[in-house]
Amino acid sequence: MVTSSGLTGRIAVDAMGGDLGPPEVVAAVALALSEFPELNPITLVGDEAVLKPLLAQHGLDGHSSLRLFHASEVITMEDKPLPSLKRKKDASMFRAIELVKSGEASAVVSCGNTGALMAGGTIKLRTLAGIDRPALAAIIPRENGHFILIDAGANPEAEAEHLAHNALLGSHYARVVLGIANPRVGLLTIGTEEGKGNALISATNVHLKSLGDLINYVGPTEGFQVFTDHCDVAVCDGFVGNLLLKSWESLAHFFSATLKSELKANPLRMGGAILSQGAFKALKKRMNPEVYGGAPLLGLRGNVLKAHGSSSRHAIKNAIRAANKIIKADMLHLIEADAAVANTIIRPQQIATTPPLESPAT
Amino acid sequence: MVTSSGLTGRIAVDAMGGDLGPPEVVAAVALALSEFPELNPITLVGDEAVLKPLLAQHGLDGHSSLRLFHASEVITMEDKPLPSLKRKKDASMFRAIELVKSGEASAVVSCGNTGALMAGGTIKLRTLAGIDRPALAAIIPRENGHFILIDAGANPEAEAEHLAHNALLGSHYARVVLGIANPRVGLLTIGTEEGKGNALISATNVHLKSLGDLINYVGPTEGFQVFTDHCDVAVCDGFVGNLLLKSWESLAHFFSATLKSELKANPLRMGGAILSQGAFKALKKRMNPEVYGGAPLLGLRGNVLKAHGSSSRHAIKNAIRAANKIIKADMLHLIEADAAVANTIIRPQQIATTPPLESPAT
Repeated sequence: MVTSSGLTGRIAVDAMGGDLGPPEVVAAVALALSEFPELNPITLVGDEAVLKPLLAQHGLDGHSSLRLFHASEVITMEDKPLPSLKRKKDASMFRAIELVKSGEASAVVSCGNTGALMAGGTIKLRTLAGIDRPALAAIIPRENGHFILIDAGANPEAEAEHLAHNALLGSHYARVVLGIANPRVGLLTIGTEEGKGNALISATNVHLKSLGDLINYVGPTEGFQVFTDHCDVAVCDGFVGNLLLKSWESLAHFFSATLKSELKANPLRMGGAILSQGAFKALKKRMNPEVYGGAPLLGLRGNVLKAHGSSSRHAIKNAIRAANKIIKADMLHLIEADAAVANTIIRPQQIATTPPLESPAT
Repeated sequence: MVTSSGLTGRIAVDAMGGDLGPPEVVAAVALALSEFPELNPITLVGDEAVLKPLLAQHGLDGHSSLRLFHASEVITMEDKPLPSLKRKKDASMFRAIELVKSGEASAVVSCGNTGALMAGGTIKLRTLAGIDRPALAAIIPRENGHFILIDAGANPEAEAEHLAHNALLGSHYARVVLGIANPRVGLLTIGTEEGKGNALISATNVHLKSLGDLINYVGPTEGFQVFTDHCDVAVCDGFVGNLLLKSWESLAHFFSATLKSELKANPLRMGGAILSQGAFKALKKRMNPEVYGGAPLLGLRGNVLKAHGSSSRHAIKNAIRAANKIIKADMLHLIEADAAVANTIIRPQQIATTPPLESPAT
């Protein structure tokens, strides 16, 4: 099916990754096919012998919008990314990425090994014209909504230009998945009064201020502002972003576990907890990152979405939905256009070497 | 009073800083004097006209263990650190630091402007022999106890040697205030499989592995391990550490506010919350950073402790107690001795230029 923008929601799903394995991925695909009929086709990539019985269970045998693509190998969480690219050429994750490269799919969704997905995506798809490095974008709940943390771990040795590109990438993603027309961009930094942050931050701050209407830059964002309604896109390098993201998950888990153990400490508290259990459920739902399901690896010549390893079928389905939104918005072309303008400002001397994407298929 | 180790608990307290102002600081000093009689003297530094009535209120007039040191100026939260060093020479914070420099006090405690305290401490006291940069150490609650985050914001452009020194500084502080004989040191990094982290982390990892028995190095610590019982000293640079610390405070606040609003959403939940209020109080207490009160700026030729701007009298009192423990443990000399050994390993070519501290006063 061709959508109004001329872009079809053709998504390749790596069926073999994730802590819950193929049964959960197939269940997610079944949900996606029933909720989003415009997805056509979803290509499920993985071991036929494993997947065929699961498809039968869900009544998906011969479904007109579903295609099965056999891949004999599986990337495990223990596989090292670069060696696995050479040693497991027929891995479902890499075959799914190749479907995007060949144009047979417009996006790949995987809840497998993050490092392998980043390496495979980057090496097989390459970056968009004008973008040097990909960045991982995570959606985080905060006061009055959500914000996008970019880069959540793809590029731990970022330069100022990369962070400026992250601001563009994050802004486009915020428009598509958060529906914010003019997302506020903040630069994560620290609160020392004399020359905030470090040399990387100072240089990035200059770039971001120079970008004019390309982004809605609200300036430096300090740690204490992160979970307030201060910015919609929080820009940082992949080292800082990954430590922040993972430590937040660790803190949320510690907080919940401590609360739970205190509530179980005596019968009175337990009784109270039962009465107010709706509040705890609502809190859990509010803090749940599964609403948006996937973290895209942005800046590549193709759409790559990473769902959390522990994703439920609902989280994977939501990642498929996010992939579909990105495709329909033609986000890659919009990013490339903005990057071309941005680069004339932040690096006027440099001549682009990567060819731009072709026009969208019609 | 001279303690068993020959070191006296002489502490200078900046009376004018903190969100709650001099009344809270004087109340803290009153608590400290009654709970820790070995403190002698505490020197309260600030505006006599403000402080004398407060001392009278607390019955501290002419207290034999209390000294008043007049300083006519106050560093505000808006003051810029370096300019204020020149423009406000008679500021209570700077006079208190000078008492440490002159040997009249062994430690300074302030809940004023962090940047000014770091700049004043660093410029007036200088670093210990063998240590190039100071580091701020924060004590954070986690599963089964607490850990020390170092550097929480003093040195945002750290090199690998600085991070190796942070491991020594944090280990000594963990021994003194957490009472852990052989604290586990982790290096904060990210979980990409190919060459974890970035160039700074790789170089630091080599240094930390080379330090042998000087530290108990448990290797890289990823974000998801931070609030688990994985390490007692988490080493990072001041940019990363400050962003982490402040973002954790922001997340904890968001989490609490969301829980509170959900519990107030209907009468049933509210009733339950009243029954289980003991659990919420216990959670709040567990997450409360005031137990340890102060974050020391380690690596200087004198003890400087920063209490949180919003510190209550109990938090300030606890910071005074921590300062006293550091003094009694003779931590500065222990750090200098370890740094001398460490530097023969991590930079054998370099000759020390800073003279060592004199022997402890007896």
